[in-house]
Amino acid sequence: MDFVKEITSKEQNFAQWYIDVVRKAELADYTTIKGCMVIRPYGYGLWENMQKGLDERIKKTGHKNAYFPLFIPEHLLKKEAEHVEGFAPEVAWVTQGGSQQLEEKMAVRPTSEAIICSLYSKWIRSYRDLPLLINQWANIVRWEKTTRLFLRTTEFLWQEGHTVHKTEEDAQEETLKILFEVYRDYIENDLAIPVVVGKKTSKERFAGALNTYTLEALMTDGKVLQAGTSHNLGQNFAKAFNIKYLDEDQTEKYAWQTSWGTTTRLIGAIVMVHGDDRGLRLPPKVAPVQLIIVPIMFDKTKDEVLNKAEQLIKILGKDVRVEIDARDEYKPGWKFNEWEMRGVPLRLEIGPRDMKKGQVVLVRRDTGEKVIVKEEDLKNKVQVLLTEIQENLYNLAKKFLDTNIREIADYEEFQEVIEEKKGMIKAFWCGNRACEDKVKEETKATIRCIPFEEENALGKCIYCGKETSTKVYFARAY
Amino acid sequence: MDFVKEITSKEQNFAQWYIDVVRKAELADYTTIKGCMVIRPYGYGLWENMQKGLDERIKKTGHKNAYFPLFIPEHLLKKEAEHVEGFAPEVAWVTQGGSQQLEEKMAVRPTSEAIICSLYSKWIRSYRDLPLLINQWANIVRWEKTTRLFLRTTEFLWQEGHTVHKTEEDAQEETLKILFEVYRDYIENDLAIPVVVGKKTSKERFAGALNTYTLEALMTDGKVLQAGTSHNLGQNFAKAFNIKYLDEDQTEKYAWQTSWGTTTRLIGAIVMVHGDDRGLRLPPKVAPVQLIIVPIMFDKTKDEVLNKAEQLIKILGKDVRVEIDARDEYKPGWKFNEWEMRGVPLRLEIGPRDMKKGQVVLVRRDTGEKVIVKEEDLKNKVQVLLTEIQENLYNLAKKFLDTNIREIADYEEFQEVIEEKKGMIKAFWCGNRACEDKVKEETKATIRCIPFEEENALGKCIYCGKETSTKVYFARAY
Repeated sequence: MDFVKEITSKEQNFAQWYIDVVRKAELADYTTIKGCMVIRPYGYGLWENMQKGLDERIKKTGHKNAYFPLFIPEHLLKKEAEHVEGFAPEVAWVTQGGSQQLEEKMAVRPTSEAIICSLYSKWIRSYRDLPLLINQWANIVRWEKTTRLFLRTTEFLWQEGHTVHKTEEDAQEETLKILFEVYRDYIENDLAIPVVVGKKTSKERFAGALNTYTLEALMTDGKVLQAGTSHNLGQNFAKAFNIKYLDEDQTEKYAWQTSWGTTTRLIGAIVMVHGDDRGLRLPPKVAPVQLIIVPIMFDKTKDEVLNKAEQLIKILGKDVRVEIDARDEYKPGWKFNEWEMRGVPLRLEIGPRDMKKGQVVLVRRDTGEKVIVKEEDLKNKVQVLLTEIQENLYNLAKKFLDTNIREIADYEEFQEVIEEKKGMIKAFWCGNRACEDKVKEETKATIRCIPFEEENALGKCIYCGKETSTKVYFARAY
Repeated sequence: MDFVKEITSKEQNFAQWYIDVVRKAELADYTTIKGCMVIRPYGYGLWENMQKGLDERIKKTGHKNAYFPLFIPEHLLKKEAEHVEGFAPEVAWVTQGGSQQLEEKMAVRPTSEAIICSLYSKWIRSYRDLPLLINQWANIVRWEKTTRLFLRTTEFLWQEGHTVHKTEEDAQEETLKILFEVYRDYIENDLAIPVVVGKKTSKERFAGALNTYTLEALMTDGKVLQAGTSHNLGQNFAKAFNIKYLDEDQTEKYAWQTSWGTTTRLIGAIVMVHGDDRGLRLPPKVAPVQLIIVPIMFDKTKDEVLNKAEQLIKILGKDVRVEIDARDEYKPGWKFNEWEMRGVPLRLEIGPRDMKKGQVVLVRRDTGEKVIVKEEDLKNKVQVLLTEIQENLYNLAKKFLDTNIREIADYEEFQEVIEEKKGMIKAFWCGNRACEDKVKEETKATIRCIPFEEENALGKCIYCGKETSTKVYFARAY
């Protein structure tokens, strides 16, 4: 029991609880390098499963992976004016190669539009080269002075899609296809995290984009985390980097572009959406270990029980990611806590008495429920339970999200709710940057997105009271 | 035919042939950034298949993946003296973060021993934590002034294993397990490249290692390429970074370590071992496209033929990576050349006449052989042919390697052969660094490795004539 006490309770100190869980479950750790974390094998195993699900969706929608240089010469980064202005303050610069000072300093990529566009302008000649649908899995560097494991680090991992299209409509269609078919499908179905989708305000959009669309997820402390973004770049980069194609009508035209990304921050979201005071709760679809076998070992029957455990692994087949915890030095109870803390969806207990009865005990991480299962039903039951756990985690998160979206019309109430209950607030907004800034200044809440659904009602801007038909989502965010 | 002419012939200019093939097949391209390349989707698809095969072997032997920081503070890199001396001349240094000068400059990792060891010293406490078996897939930077696509670039991709063990024997066992069970198995079976394995001389070994073992592959121009290395690090890093464990006997001991890596250079090896004057020839196991369907399209029957092609894809099933080239703007003959140049192992031709007969034409890239196959035999025949092509490519390369390893005892003959025939030369060497240096100076040949097989014969050092029992492999290398 001491063991679980080492995790701070969520209620008491959410930020500390988060760090405790991430470090004790060995998802990640700090390093001596300011702002940089290490993703440990358990965390990286989770990331590999996340990558697999997302990569499949990216490829299924026609994209191929490629790899572009880590370094971006300063003059390239400067080509798109808004872009460099947005990223320059957080760039790490290489100024020295071996013992020589470089003539031009090079940015360690804070995002890859500049380098990728410089190549696209060489590769694209004709309408036949379009659409060009490329994705990259890569490391990214944005200078940070503090480290919040997965949430805010100088280096992180991500995927970034960069596509080129013939028309504005094609680019917009791609932007939304990524938002809905790829990202929302992945985040909701694989990560079991429900999201609110919509458009960013001009203040919050990507530096250099025409429009940024976003998926916003609600953490259990009531703060929101941006789970992914999809940008319609319009022709801004095409004009800055001279990306033109000869169309069927024999005229040269500037192309239309999109870019989109999700990062290892999503690991932080998984922790904060599903975790509880006992530690992680991982969605079965991405859990590195889906089922942990804890054999109940006595000296006399140990070998027998371990043999049985190996048999069970064969029965379960390749479809289940399973491990045996056969360590002698720990008691079963200690192991139960350990694997609960690590968020493994299902625990299987097997001892000599179970063996005699031809049964095993399964315990769900999400509900704590125990089920006794006959060996012959095991394979099927495990599949059913993993599916149920995946759904249950989503449903719990969805319920939490739904009860924490509040429609508010009065600014005082808005301030109270943001301070005390947090969550997302749906409120009217006049569209004015000044009101957006003031709300942020006074409440730390930002506009997370403008939803797609148009509402026909009119109302008053939460800050200035001006009449408007636009409702937006406000929240405090990571 | 013009098309194929655009590739320089191997005979005429091997280096130019290589660049032509890499660029025309769209494996990779130059960028405006000195020393940096871009890996295009076709090349990256190849790399993904290579990664998959190697990653499976790495995991099967008990290793897990993790991710460590890109940046290494200067003081960490300096901890192991030989290590920093070896790598400092090729390090890219970050000196500026945002607008601030850093107090300590940071290396963009040229290899990750320093950062990983600094973390291992925190993580490892007891013998129970060992062995620690971790691998990382990452980008690496070593400053280069020239670019040779895949072969020599400032940035490249690789995997690096870093393991920690209780005893010297355990570390040595791991070093050789990686060399044989993981690397040789992967390179010979997946990439169809036969290798010569052995130990590096002290001159050629990894900076900071006790012993470096290597796999050397012979390119068809007679030069050798180092295909992978596996290092027994001994206790050098453990002592520099204070990696100790409490053993079962309750005493504290320094741990023993290994590290090992293979890189995107292996893509260059695939090109240079298997390619011919028509372009690439890719081993089926790693080819991004294993079978290309070229439909013979006439206006009247086009839809019918395309429907049939789609049916054939279903017949072939998920086990074959297949694409259809349905482009209207190119003739079949042009497409044949294009896909041969891209090295696709099998081409399937289907036209209205074939359809009537219920058959297709299969053409092998390695031999040019045409086979007419009944639709009902297609699935099976494709599997058989892909296996045959994989084996044939290996056998051709093995034969070339075997006929280009020459035992030579006379230094004049050695010089002639290295200059005219190249290949690998097996010769006696006294073990003296001075002779090794002189041979390199006078012939550009280096000692590639000291083979494992002991020979009982004595002979005279190829350079100084001193009697010795050590035979080694010399070659000019990439």
